[in-house]
Amino acid sequence: MSRYTKATDVLMQGERHRVWSLVVTIFGDLAQNKGDEISAQALSRLTEQIGIKSEALRVALHRLRKDGWLESKRLGRSSSYYLTDFGLAQSASASPRIYGLTNPIRSEWALITTPNTTEGREGDAAKLESDNRVIRLGAQVFLGEENNLPKIKRALLTRIGADPLPDWVRDQIIGPELKASYNDLLLQLQKIEKTLPENASPIERAVLRTLIVHSWRRILLRHPDIPNGFYPRSCKAIECRDTVCELLKELSRPSLVDLSTV
Amino acid sequence: MSRYTKATDVLMQGERHRVWSLVVTIFGDLAQNKGDEISAQALSRLTEQIGIKSEALRVALHRLRKDGWLESKRLGRSSSYYLTDFGLAQSASASPRIYGLTNPIRSEWALITTPNTTEGREGDAAKLESDNRVIRLGAQVFLGEENNLPKIKRALLTRIGADPLPDWVRDQIIGPELKASYNDLLLQLQKIEKTLPENASPIERAVLRTLIVHSWRRILLRHPDIPNGFYPRSCKAIECRDTVCELLKELSRPSLVDLSTV
Repeated sequence: MSRYTKATDVLMQGERHRVWSLVVTIFGDLAQNKGDEISAQALSRLTEQIGIKSEALRVALHRLRKDGWLESKRLGRSSSYYLTDFGLAQSASASPRIYGLTNPIRSEWALITTPNTTEGREGDAAKLESDNRVIRLGAQVFLGEENNLPKIKRALLTRIGADPLPDWVRDQIIGPELKASYNDLLLQLQKIEKTLPENASPIERAVLRTLIVHSWRRILLRHPDIPNGFYPRSCKAIECRDTVCELLKELSRPSLVDLSTV
Repeated sequence: MSRYTKATDVLMQGERHRVWSLVVTIFGDLAQNKGDEISAQALSRLTEQIGIKSEALRVALHRLRKDGWLESKRLGRSSSYYLTDFGLAQSASASPRIYGLTNPIRSEWALITTPNTTEGREGDAAKLESDNRVIRLGAQVFLGEENNLPKIKRALLTRIGADPLPDWVRDQIIGPELKASYNDLLLQLQKIEKTLPENASPIERAVLRTLIVHSWRRILLRHPDIPNGFYPRSCKAIECRDTVCELLKELSRPSLVDLSTV
């Protein structure tokens, strides 16, 4: 078994990657600039190595075009795909979180307290409960970024200070399941670090990058972006980020030309 | 009916003044300095005008001595009473709130959020529920002065900013009953302003001062001292404070010598 196969095995272990979402990861990683396109052939080869059937890829591409993420174009007998302006914008907005080594500078965080009466809660609390930008700390208490809050009318806003957050707050921000996902991912990433092939081909690098970025972003995007001090002490999210960044540096991004001509 | 009688009538209307507490008010108002004493005779005359029976006064004085608030001393056939060091300290600590025209400079206010789990709440929330320095805004949310908080272990503290507090928070700080008390008191004080006797005797001034200060402090001390912006918009607490101060200026404090020799 080659080092490359070992690495992909680790990353695909027990995972059910949704093809639609995986294709988004591929384009986000390899073709995020306007004008970038991936040939149908390269896409097939890449997804095949991840264990995706050609029929499943076809369905995913159809759906992504229908949903406005992708466009395709033909050139003689071959075709290629590229992100639409909408797709480019979506990818660009997620990129800083996925690829950034540190959080970009953010606004302050605020505690949002809503009235404790049933009538008073209706509006604000209901809105906050269903908004994925904020984190719920209790029936009437939420946490959010000051510059990125849903419009709320009656809530009391107080600013999170420089003191470390109490453990129960961190455990509420990143629940036990999410924490376990981070900690499992770190173990996987560390295994990959050890089995990384020395001279990976462009397609091998693309496959490994896709699997790493995909596993990482699937966990990452389940919660709002938060300062490092908001993670539970025993959560390995920061270590995951560091390791992802190191691995991606090691597995340098293949050029689209290399990918299509192999 | 003299203007004086009218004024005392207004203040005693529908009120059940606890004698013990009223005597504390008298000493706090008239004899708050070390060395000050009120003769038994002056005390009888003063309380008699408020409608207190001599037997009730005797019981109250006995209890206040037993509880360490008052001491008495004899001089020939007459006796006098004075605040103990404990009583002086208690009076001195309440005075700024009762007599101050504006709040003294205070520390910042903080929102205190406790864990929302039953186990987590046990310690902190239970402590906060029973501490009269903090104000409850909900099952896991309290409001308190940063420099004057009970010792809490796991709570999240966030600072109240300069923005006006939402109305529901103010209504929680000063509930409907307390607000009604303030607003009723303002009406009474305004009636007194109109019926104030022009040349009140020392004993009359003492009686009116006692009734005013007593009514005021009974409401005031039911909640922690708060910045002006924390009162509900329709609560007349600030107007009460202003009117109390004006009335007490008008009804200048009689000297203890004048009181005892009338």
